[in-house]
Amino acid sequence: MRILGALLITLIITAHLAAQDQHRAVAERLKDQALTDMASYEMLKELTSTAGHRLSGSVGYEKAVRWAQQRLTDAGADSVWTEPVMVPHWERGPIEKAFARSGKRTVELTVCALGGSVGTEKNGVTGRVIEVRSFEEVRALGEKARGAIIFFNRPFDRTRVNTGEAYGGAVNQRSSGAIEAAKVGAAGVLVRSMTNAIDDEPHTGMMRYDPAVPKIPAAAVSTLDADALSAMIRGGSDITVTLRLSARSFPDVLSSNVIAEIRGSEHPDQIVLVGGHLDAWDKGTGAHDDGSGVAQSIQVIRLMKKLGLRPKRTIRVVLFANEENGLKGALAYAAREQNTRERHIAAIESDAGGFMPRGFGVTADSASFARLSRYAALLEVAGAGRVTAGGGGADIGPLKPFGTALIGLSPESQRYFDYHHSNHDTIDKVHPRELELGAVAMAILAWAIAEDGL
Amino acid sequence: MRILGALLITLIITAHLAAQDQHRAVAERLKDQALTDMASYEMLKELTSTAGHRLSGSVGYEKAVRWAQQRLTDAGADSVWTEPVMVPHWERGPIEKAFARSGKRTVELTVCALGGSVGTEKNGVTGRVIEVRSFEEVRALGEKARGAIIFFNRPFDRTRVNTGEAYGGAVNQRSSGAIEAAKVGAAGVLVRSMTNAIDDEPHTGMMRYDPAVPKIPAAAVSTLDADALSAMIRGGSDITVTLRLSARSFPDVLSSNVIAEIRGSEHPDQIVLVGGHLDAWDKGTGAHDDGSGVAQSIQVIRLMKKLGLRPKRTIRVVLFANEENGLKGALAYAAREQNTRERHIAAIESDAGGFMPRGFGVTADSASFARLSRYAALLEVAGAGRVTAGGGGADIGPLKPFGTALIGLSPESQRYFDYHHSNHDTIDKVHPRELELGAVAMAILAWAIAEDGL
Repeated sequence: MRILGALLITLIITAHLAAQDQHRAVAERLKDQALTDMASYEMLKELTSTAGHRLSGSVGYEKAVRWAQQRLTDAGADSVWTEPVMVPHWERGPIEKAFARSGKRTVELTVCALGGSVGTEKNGVTGRVIEVRSFEEVRALGEKARGAIIFFNRPFDRTRVNTGEAYGGAVNQRSSGAIEAAKVGAAGVLVRSMTNAIDDEPHTGMMRYDPAVPKIPAAAVSTLDADALSAMIRGGSDITVTLRLSARSFPDVLSSNVIAEIRGSEHPDQIVLVGGHLDAWDKGTGAHDDGSGVAQSIQVIRLMKKLGLRPKRTIRVVLFANEENGLKGALAYAAREQNTRERHIAAIESDAGGFMPRGFGVTADSASFARLSRYAALLEVAGAGRVTAGGGGADIGPLKPFGTALIGLSPESQRYFDYHHSNHDTIDKVHPRELELGAVAMAILAWAIAEDGL
Repeated sequence: MRILGALLITLIITAHLAAQDQHRAVAERLKDQALTDMASYEMLKELTSTAGHRLSGSVGYEKAVRWAQQRLTDAGADSVWTEPVMVPHWERGPIEKAFARSGKRTVELTVCALGGSVGTEKNGVTGRVIEVRSFEEVRALGEKARGAIIFFNRPFDRTRVNTGEAYGGAVNQRSSGAIEAAKVGAAGVLVRSMTNAIDDEPHTGMMRYDPAVPKIPAAAVSTLDADALSAMIRGGSDITVTLRLSARSFPDVLSSNVIAEIRGSEHPDQIVLVGGHLDAWDKGTGAHDDGSGVAQSIQVIRLMKKLGLRPKRTIRVVLFANEENGLKGALAYAAREQNTRERHIAAIESDAGGFMPRGFGVTADSASFARLSRYAALLEVAGAGRVTAGGGGADIGPLKPFGTALIGLSPESQRYFDYHHSNHDTIDKVHPRELELGAVAMAILAWAIAEDGL
């Protein structure tokens, strides 16, 4: 098997070196232009200062829509338009507080409402706090859980080099913790923030409810306070927690995806999608998540127009609405595929931060994966030559049934969850050249696919 | 040729997959232990807060020597010792100021003395400023240069993805600018700081004199002020600059390299060296340059001892004195190779910052390079699988005549020169996990070479 595998590699390498050489000159031009202009960073600075918080349903999101239309027009796109989509509208409001009490001692915990959580009565909800690490532990609580505050405190697995894997191993506490806790009669939920960093910043993020059980309030607690609360619980019995949240949901709102394209010269109905999501959580300014993907995607069109590049297939930028709390933009966009003659041959999403690109993760059939892998050396022009199996992005996921190759930009992941969904996700955490090189990697790959097909 | 090359790759892949599998379990244990303990970061925090500035000849350097001996002993090294070396002693003193004058307008420039520069008279040196981008331009100045301040303002080539290459393309202005300027009779030198960042921070670094021409004072100017000065020069005639420096050199000082090792169980005289340099510039605290390399090197021994690993060949940590302004530690260490039965089969240096490791650069004969390349997949355990030709490190360079394979850790380079040799090089710029993964990559490679030979 090893010899066969190696021989296969030989054949692939030999057959496709020529294709790489052909695109190398374009790749170098894209890289030189981007690192000279640094336009992605300038755009990100504008987006984060103009729109600021831009959660679905907010005024900020609609500002971001207008900003993106203007920048895509400035970039020289052949056409720029919006497509309507109904999105949720949730606001955390001014109050998010929690206190832990042990006898006469009261400690304030740094918390924030999880996205979608219900609020509490004015005096909050109070209950005995029970620390757990898994849903199995919750189910085993039985009657003890009734009226309690369930404290989910399973940390990231620090030994995962890819922090996205550590997130994947912990995030069900945030997304489904309130459901599991409500099933056993709990009154509320605290969840350890989804990060490797040990600090005093809570990290929000999406949580779900199940219509079959009561909606109970849920908040993230900073990792420092999660450790402190855990120590209190180990140190004494009968610790109670009071949680006060002013969060509430409003009726859905009409919003929009923002779309622009460079029409393909030979196969305009074959689309190479490049995108990210335009919404962001209402903490920080969504500089990495996903202002970076937005700026990089616009930059792909800007660079091509600036260099006078006309692809054979259409390169389309889609800036999705409502990735963070509903995915309604992505679902609406994928639904249209059935009603058009267009075919999305590939979709490239940047939604893992504006850090140094290392490569791309690909979800596709094996033939397409092999064809994309041959671009590894070409992508090294932007330092992004690691093409691996698996990956994509939340917004492009709904295109999977249509046979689209799903491709996620893979930036270095160590710092991402230090900032993700928190007040730390601001422009000063983005390195201009790292951001720019991510845009270059996306532009090179989009160009190669648009020229060669897939 | 392509088919032949690809077939060669096939053979290499097939032959050596087994060797990789054999080390993978150890690599995973090293990674898990490091990411759990985070000891490199704790050590770096200690070093930078205990020793602070630690330029050769300073009290800080000698504090760092004692600290390193203690930490290597704590790490469980089989032996820890120092070796004497005479090093230069230069101090910048309290004054480093520069002013540009255009008619009645005076602008202060943010500058710092280059390392090794002579000082000025109390009133400084004043001359007409002449901006140049190359030594050719300096030589072409002729008589106009007499008494002038030569302002070297060739920026980094921003289009280089590897910022080390951009540094390499600009640094001769800093290292040899004063010599070239003195040859045409200039009175002093200003050099644009060696960085892609545009800010108000000057970056110091080594400069040389030539006994054949006068020693003239030389300072780095921040990139913001370099741009401002350049604009003044374009905008008007007769701009003068006054440069005041209190820098001076003192007699050489007796100092030391710090060395420790785990003795090999089968071939103790075959050495795999792991190291960095213990000295640092007197700006910031040398957190990336090269506190990171020091902490990572100690961590290599610590991890092996913690996991009970005993290599077949000796793994030796060398923390070199005086890399920044003389390389005396490295020269003294290499000189001893002639007087021992030891043979350094490989030397691994970390001196490019504590950023996320991407791989290693190798300077070695082609057979050794091929053997080292086979560890690429193994090194991906730490995210450091890119093994490329060329590279090494200043401190291990003098081992080249002995046939030692010279190997430099290659961390991601985008941020390094933002901090390098400036007040910005402090611990808050180091990401704990990125630093730790560099140590893991070094430990994996040192282990594999120490087991397999080279």
